[in-house]
Amino acid sequence: MKSLLLASALCCGLAGTALAEDWHDSPWGPDDEIGAANLITPESVLEAAKLVKTGKTYNLGIVVDKDTPAFSPRSMSITVLQPNQITTEGLGTNGMTYNDDIFMGWLGIGPQIDGLGHIGIKHTYYNGLAEADVAKADGLVKLGLEKLPPIVARGVMLNMAAFYGQDIVKEGTAYTKDDIVAAAKAQGVELKKGDVVLFHSGWLDLLDGETPDHDRYVKVEPGLGISGAEYLAEVGVIAVGADTWGVEAVPFENGTDGVFAVHQILIPQNGIYILENMDTRALAEDNAHEFLFVLGVTRMKGAVQMMINPTAIR
Amino acid sequence: MKSLLLASALCCGLAGTALAEDWHDSPWGPDDEIGAANLITPESVLEAAKLVKTGKTYNLGIVVDKDTPAFSPRSMSITVLQPNQITTEGLGTNGMTYNDDIFMGWLGIGPQIDGLGHIGIKHTYYNGLAEADVAKADGLVKLGLEKLPPIVARGVMLNMAAFYGQDIVKEGTAYTKDDIVAAAKAQGVELKKGDVVLFHSGWLDLLDGETPDHDRYVKVEPGLGISGAEYLAEVGVIAVGADTWGVEAVPFENGTDGVFAVHQILIPQNGIYILENMDTRALAEDNAHEFLFVLGVTRMKGAVQMMINPTAIR
Amino acid sequence: MKSLLLASALCCGLAGTALAEDWHDSPWGPDDEIGAANLITPESVLEAAKLVKTGKTYNLGIVVDKDTPAFSPRSMSITVLQPNQITTEGLGTNGMTYNDDIFMGWLGIGPQIDGLGHIGIKHTYYNGLAEADVAKADGLVKLGLEKLPPIVARGVMLNMAAFYGQDIVKEGTAYTKDDIVAAAKAQGVELKKGDVVLFHSGWLDLLDGETPDHDRYVKVEPGLGISGAEYLAEVGVIAVGADTWGVEAVPFENGTDGVFAVHQILIPQNGIYILENMDTRALAEDNAHEFLFVLGVTRMKGAVQMMINPTAIR
Amino acid sequence: MKSLLLASALCCGLAGTALAEDWHDSPWGPDDEIGAANLITPESVLEAAKLVKTGKTYNLGIVVDKDTPAFSPRSMSITVLQPNQITTEGLGTNGMTYNDDIFMGWLGIGPQIDGLGHIGIKHTYYNGLAEADVAKADGLVKLGLEKLPPIVARGVMLNMAAFYGQDIVKEGTAYTKDDIVAAAKAQGVELKKGDVVLFHSGWLDLLDGETPDHDRYVKVEPGLGISGAEYLAEVGVIAVGADTWGVEAVPFENGTDGVFAVHQILIPQNGIYILENMDTRALAEDNAHEFLFVLGVTRMKGAVQMMINPTAIR
Repeated sequence: MKSLLLASALCCGLAGTALAEDWHDSPWGPDDEIGAANLITPESVLEAAKLVKTGKTYNLGIVVDKDTPAFSPRSMSITVLQPNQITTEGLGTNGMTYNDDIFMGWLGIGPQIDGLGHIGIKHTYYNGLAEADVAKADGLVKLGLEKLPPIVARGVMLNMAAFYGQDIVKEGTAYTKDDIVAAAKAQGVELKKGDVVLFHSGWLDLLDGETPDHDRYVKVEPGLGISGAEYLAEVGVIAVGADTWGVEAVPFENGTDGVFAVHQILIPQNGIYILENMDTRALAEDNAHEFLFVLGVTRMKGAVQMMINPTAIR
Repeated sequence: MKSLLLASALCCGLAGTALAEDWHDSPWGPDDEIGAANLITPESVLEAAKLVKTGKTYNLGIVVDKDTPAFSPRSMSITVLQPNQITTEGLGTNGMTYNDDIFMGWLGIGPQIDGLGHIGIKHTYYNGLAEADVAKADGLVKLGLEKLPPIVARGVMLNMAAFYGQDIVKEGTAYTKDDIVAAAKAQGVELKKGDVVLFHSGWLDLLDGETPDHDRYVKVEPGLGISGAEYLAEVGVIAVGADTWGVEAVPFENGTDGVFAVHQILIPQNGIYILENMDTRALAEDNAHEFLFVLGVTRMKGAVQMMINPTAIR
Repeated sequence: MKSLLLASALCCGLAGTALAEDWHDSPWGPDDEIGAANLITPESVLEAAKLVKTGKTYNLGIVVDKDTPAFSPRSMSITVLQPNQITTEGLGTNGMTYNDDIFMGWLGIGPQIDGLGHIGIKHTYYNGLAEADVAKADGLVKLGLEKLPPIVARGVMLNMAAFYGQDIVKEGTAYTKDDIVAAAKAQGVELKKGDVVLFHSGWLDLLDGETPDHDRYVKVEPGLGISGAEYLAEVGVIAVGADTWGVEAVPFENGTDGVFAVHQILIPQNGIYILENMDTRALAEDNAHEFLFVLGVTRMKGAVQMMINPTAIR
Repeated sequence: MKSLLLASALCCGLAGTALAEDWHDSPWGPDDEIGAANLITPESVLEAAKLVKTGKTYNLGIVVDKDTPAFSPRSMSITVLQPNQITTEGLGTNGMTYNDDIFMGWLGIGPQIDGLGHIGIKHTYYNGLAEADVAKADGLVKLGLEKLPPIVARGVMLNMAAFYGQDIVKEGTAYTKDDIVAAAKAQGVELKKGDVVLFHSGWLDLLDGETPDHDRYVKVEPGLGISGAEYLAEVGVIAVGADTWGVEAVPFENGTDGVFAVHQILIPQNGIYILENMDTRALAEDNAHEFLFVLGVTRMKGAVQMMINPTAIR
């Protein structure tokens, strides 16, 4: 396929990333299950911590509820209850009363991380692992998110809405390598190995902004293109996020020849994590292009995806 | 009650905490829903960030699965599935295959934060809010965890196992004010307003260590005592965590006169968050008593509790 | 309240039913947990079986899915998966492949039975049981549906749409005692002790008929009125069903003085079961006013409600 | 495979059943989705109704709860709650209070029917349907249980424990054609086309009887053998049930050459339903070998399996 050939061409001479035909073998060894999270080192953490200069913090996860549009047929609900307390004044003479909550649904809704067990190419997953060796019905046995170290890294926000001069970047717009390089340059920031890159498109306006349109929100989106994904793999980023439900451009750049092809380049081919439904609005408003990014993913054994709320600190 | 009178005595002259009879009124105003998280300021964040000196990071959440012992009748399961892919080579000519996952269960299992809507006193919650104004069946309308800013603060780990000279602190041991003051002094650290305090007791050994005993793990525990909780409220901490399922001493210090009384002192009376099933083992091993604590809680609308994995960075 | 006084007046001289102030004591004794299901006897079953004359059968439950309108905040989903079979030809050399399914949601959706633990009056339930003695968070300890014997009885369908001369009976229409008596007479059927009575209103047209209107379907409805409910209790029926989500007239006959008052008359006061979202269309089309009614409710321990599909045979 | 050749040999001259290589084509036509349920006719219903002679009824489903042993990784829970009623006296001046319940889990637990979409042979299902045409992640699009008519038929209980002279039939015991013929003869009953056949083995004693052993209950079982299954298909039964979790003999008669081979003979090859965890104890005690069997399966759209509680009436 064209995209893979292109990837192959790009990959020559790279360290720390694996593209194209050789993607089955992780550069971090045959037993590796965490991919680009290997790029996090004490040195990189110390470097990233230096970005804290104002003490301002940001919740990067959007608020999620049962109405949050999601990839079909994913749905969720939360239920709040007061176990065994009706008609009582609570437990003990001190009257201990409490609310509890139940969640029913898919973990791939709203603000979420795609783990390395999420996406495969014809049933082969990161590090060349066969589906049968990765997934069991009661949890992943390999590539589960509980194995992830804390993601502490330099965060970079690229404001693609500003770059394209649009309030909301048009659906299907695929961020190319050239676009990304140009946007970074225009916004005074340079992408580096070990970064977490977040793209701001203004798309969340369709979710809870002034012109909400949930159908449009989840049906299409602007996002990372194939050359852009290959470029980020070449740079050696840890994770790629966006203020959209799926991070990559939809309709797909290559149509039915590239259904979630960007997901494939990032996750199985390069061990790069994807962060969806990230709220980049406050960062964009503050022109905050660099920050300390911190994410501790809930360590549910065998989880494929997980709802998250990363923290930006600058 | 004795404990409340004591609390009342302690509270005089305090700023930033509310104890005893006047607890209905938050010091942060009648509309406040986030309690001690108000103590986080750009200045406190900058100060905490200075604690990053080695670049070493820690996952503070334990791994959770269906067998993790939990407060009855809480239970959970995860299911991994491959929607609509059986007998296919995936979507598109590029063969996009994927795993998804479903969660069914209670959010108060394993590594969790207790939000301010979790615990009340005779159905009155933080800031004097009536249960009927706080909780609806489909989510909290007030005090929901989605309102929480990032918890970025100085983290302090007190090694109570070392303090008491026990591998695993005995169940029912209640950490008093004097114990906490003495432990902090012995371990060369001073508690300050705006801290997140984590107690290490060795209790996780019963969960997944050399002498596992799930029944004992979840039936009893060592933990914070009443005078200790009042002391931490006096200091003005943001959150209190421990390597146990419930943070406070069980059997309860005051028996049926104080069922989860420490929870009541911390949450409704002082707006202090509780962090349960925190994995303090690596911190204890490293004698890491001070660190940058970062927690972004998944922003599920109306959530009472949430599974978490805070990050310690030092 | 007026309705209860009326009930009191009606109750004099009745055997087998308990109305008004004395409702706390079941006529079937202090330990009774099944109410009007006690009316089923070998004799009544033999009598009902005689109604089988043509061999025609009917599914009385509507089809339920995630879009079925339900009392807020109830929701549900079903997920079909193929555990551990992806990229395989199945288990064994014989290739055993299979689909499984998961249900997440509320049991009070679609075609459902309201058990005797469903409805109370100020937290007192059937047979004068206190809520605290009935319900635990992990299931009812009394009045659970698993205790129900098979409901095998004479079924009677009253076509209220025909009686009122409307295709769809208007919302809020409350079937009075006089209406019920007159409709039965006009349709050549007499209500008797031990019957299961089903009301046909044409309301399902709003669910899946020619003029669907899900909002209207679940917001209001025609249905049983207070005098009608008291009359059915006087007759001594086992269960009352309808082709609506809630069986009783909404808006309520007595407004905020009678919120689900018909539910209270039937369930806690008289131990009569309620059957919701029953598909009476085929019976109405066939003018089938009498039939053998058979319902075996899934015996989930401690269940309050349960999705059902009773069978009519005539 | 031997079993299929045997099946082929048996099938010659049969009407109403399809065995062996030609199983892809249902005898009920290319559009058929309900299999042997087609055998139910007004005549067969009338005939079955004649079996009601004493008026005695039986719940045939066992009670199911979270501890009911099930095929891995199936699990379930029920939660009872009182939506929005804490600290209130209920809705309206009439004090309407209520309990509701939530189910989370797999539908293939406890008393259950296996629909025709449950079992395939190398991903081909009943009537030769390809898995991709049968199952979607949010429900079956073909073969869903909501399409099932009421199962009203002659029920036959064969007491295999009595036949073998064992209180509990030993695990792995495979009921052969000869055994079934002999047991029926000994117990004075003749199997006929359109029957629902239930086997009693005493196995439920391991679930909730005098010598409970949940591990043994769900790991192995006595049950229908291959020749027995082919014989029942030849007879033309509608459904086969048993007082075990899986109806067929485990360990499998043919080991890894016949993993759930009886399921394959019954469901995809012959459109015969399987009824698991049926409580045949009271029937066995009453020597009730013939009865009217009535089952209305909850009509959840796209359901593969469903919890059930059939009714026996005699």
